[in-house]
Amino acid sequence: MSIGGHSLFECVPNFSEGRRPEILDALRKAAEVPEVAILGMEGDPDHNRAVMTLVGPAEPLSEAVFRAMRIAVESIDLNQHRGTHPRIGAADVIPFVPWRNATMDEAVGLAHALGRRVGDELGLPVFFYGYAALSPARINLFEVRRGEFEGLAMRMSREAPDFGPTAPHPTAGAAAIGARNVLIAFNVYLHTQNLTVARRVARAVRGTSGGLVGVKALAMDTKSRGWVQVSMNLIDYRTTSLPQALEMVRREAARYGVAVAETEVVGLMPYVALEDAVRYYLQMPGFERRRVLETAMGDADHHSNGHAGGWDDGI
Amino acid sequence: MSIGGHSLFECVPNFSEGRRPEILDALRKAAEVPEVAILGMEGDPDHNRAVMTLVGPAEPLSEAVFRAMRIAVESIDLNQHRGTHPRIGAADVIPFVPWRNATMDEAVGLAHALGRRVGDELGLPVFFYGYAALSPARINLFEVRRGEFEGLAMRMSREAPDFGPTAPHPTAGAAAIGARNVLIAFNVYLHTQNLTVARRVARAVRGTSGGLVGVKALAMDTKSRGWVQVSMNLIDYRTTSLPQALEMVRREAARYGVAVAETEVVGLMPYVALEDAVRYYLQMPGFERRRVLETAMGDADHHSNGHAGGWDDGI
Repeated sequence: MSIGGHSLFECVPNFSEGRRPEILDALRKAAEVPEVAILGMEGDPDHNRAVMTLVGPAEPLSEAVFRAMRIAVESIDLNQHRGTHPRIGAADVIPFVPWRNATMDEAVGLAHALGRRVGDELGLPVFFYGYAALSPARINLFEVRRGEFEGLAMRMSREAPDFGPTAPHPTAGAAAIGARNVLIAFNVYLHTQNLTVARRVARAVRGTSGGLVGVKALAMDTKSRGWVQVSMNLIDYRTTSLPQALEMVRREAARYGVAVAETEVVGLMPYVALEDAVRYYLQMPGFERRRVLETAMGDADHHSNGHAGGWDDGI
Repeated sequence: MSIGGHSLFECVPNFSEGRRPEILDALRKAAEVPEVAILGMEGDPDHNRAVMTLVGPAEPLSEAVFRAMRIAVESIDLNQHRGTHPRIGAADVIPFVPWRNATMDEAVGLAHALGRRVGDELGLPVFFYGYAALSPARINLFEVRRGEFEGLAMRMSREAPDFGPTAPHPTAGAAAIGARNVLIAFNVYLHTQNLTVARRVARAVRGTSGGLVGVKALAMDTKSRGWVQVSMNLIDYRTTSLPQALEMVRREAARYGVAVAETEVVGLMPYVALEDAVRYYLQMPGFERRRVLETAMGDADHHSNGHAGGWDDGI
């Protein structure tokens, strides 16, 4: 059946497991629900974290995410978990993103409904963040995750979650469930093992400490690669583009004589990021999507099939 | 009707007119033939040249190209034509490119058949070039175009064309008709009006004078932009990529203290050029097409519509 008709949402759950393939398999299998497309599933052993990209209509998508969260709660013990990425729970961060024909309000509604179900049925304390936050202090995920799993009991003795039990789940911690716009999760590896360099670069680049407005950045000790990493979220990549973020990282790292080794995107990147790379680095301001041969061919096919929206009338 | 089924060819005719919009319109209208998609049509006033991109099955495509060539012969007088781009005729260069389900031999067959018709019906001398060349000396378009329109009568007094009259058409000159692989026509503007710099850069970059194997390059005096231009054909862009060509131009221009102002692609660029830009400049060796959100969504739609070839089995 086509997923092209109704309102669609993206959900990008982050689970605190990036090493045991059998758990990654189980998480993925759990999310196999009719009408939901699993667009990606990647585990990172250094972060010890997996990111799944799901797209679907509201109800089946929420069901898929819930099932995967249940597997995470059953199979991941945060008391044993070590990794470089900050986390508060087994099903750590669950963002809903409005997609085709969907609004942010609807995404917030999905986040709240899932939060209530997760609190009731999985016994997980839930913090709502981003557009789904119920208080200003919880808008920023960074604040919600402060102290991580290890500091959660102490923290929850002073402040209640938004839903669910008032103490952490003994093995699965808590979950941050939210709504946000599409972002690009962009990691830059620096050609050094010196984490201090990555920390300084991250501080210079991130908006909250004087860097680029649309950029969040953390330093990560990614030992398995032999390099350290600046892990970024580009939360407004149409304004602060991926090339701009990369070039600022490059310049700041060069202060310490360190070069960029390579980069990666976690999950998916929007097409506009490719366009930004072409316009910026190829210095090609006139680039347009229809100048790509395959795109022009696809438009021609569509047009000649009687669909609306072809850009060319000469067929 | 869909153009997705049968063998498809691309044809990228170059006409010696880039200034009079009514002629560009007439050329385009002439190419409006059922089953043929006009993917692009661009005139350049400095080059005084237009490039049309057509895709379709063999017969209708040849018909569309023939009709546009007839308009060019009727409406363009090379005796009056001034422009920076070398040319021998009104319908100057007509390359066929094998596309979906098509072979180079078939493209050569199309070139030869069109050449015969053009010679007979339009009275144009025809030189076959590229894979369609009948002698090694005419493989390279540069050789075919040597002396340009102004030197054509003298040249044809010594050597016969491959088909058609043995003297130039009085106003429309001759046509080079050929077959080739997909290429990228890539122009780099240098931030100077000094044509000598563009000539030196073009010489350093082009393969025939010691530069990059897969690159042809000419210097162009593109006055309307206030810059000079290095106009390149990347004839094997999978081996010698667009970023590599641009960076060599940049380095050679920097020898003279000149920077790259901007770039453009003439006609269409294959998707792989976008991937090359991402992998090269973003230093993202792991980039894959399915990591683009819209592509992944499209695949999911296809898959869920029951088409083969979706990469994800989790729907």
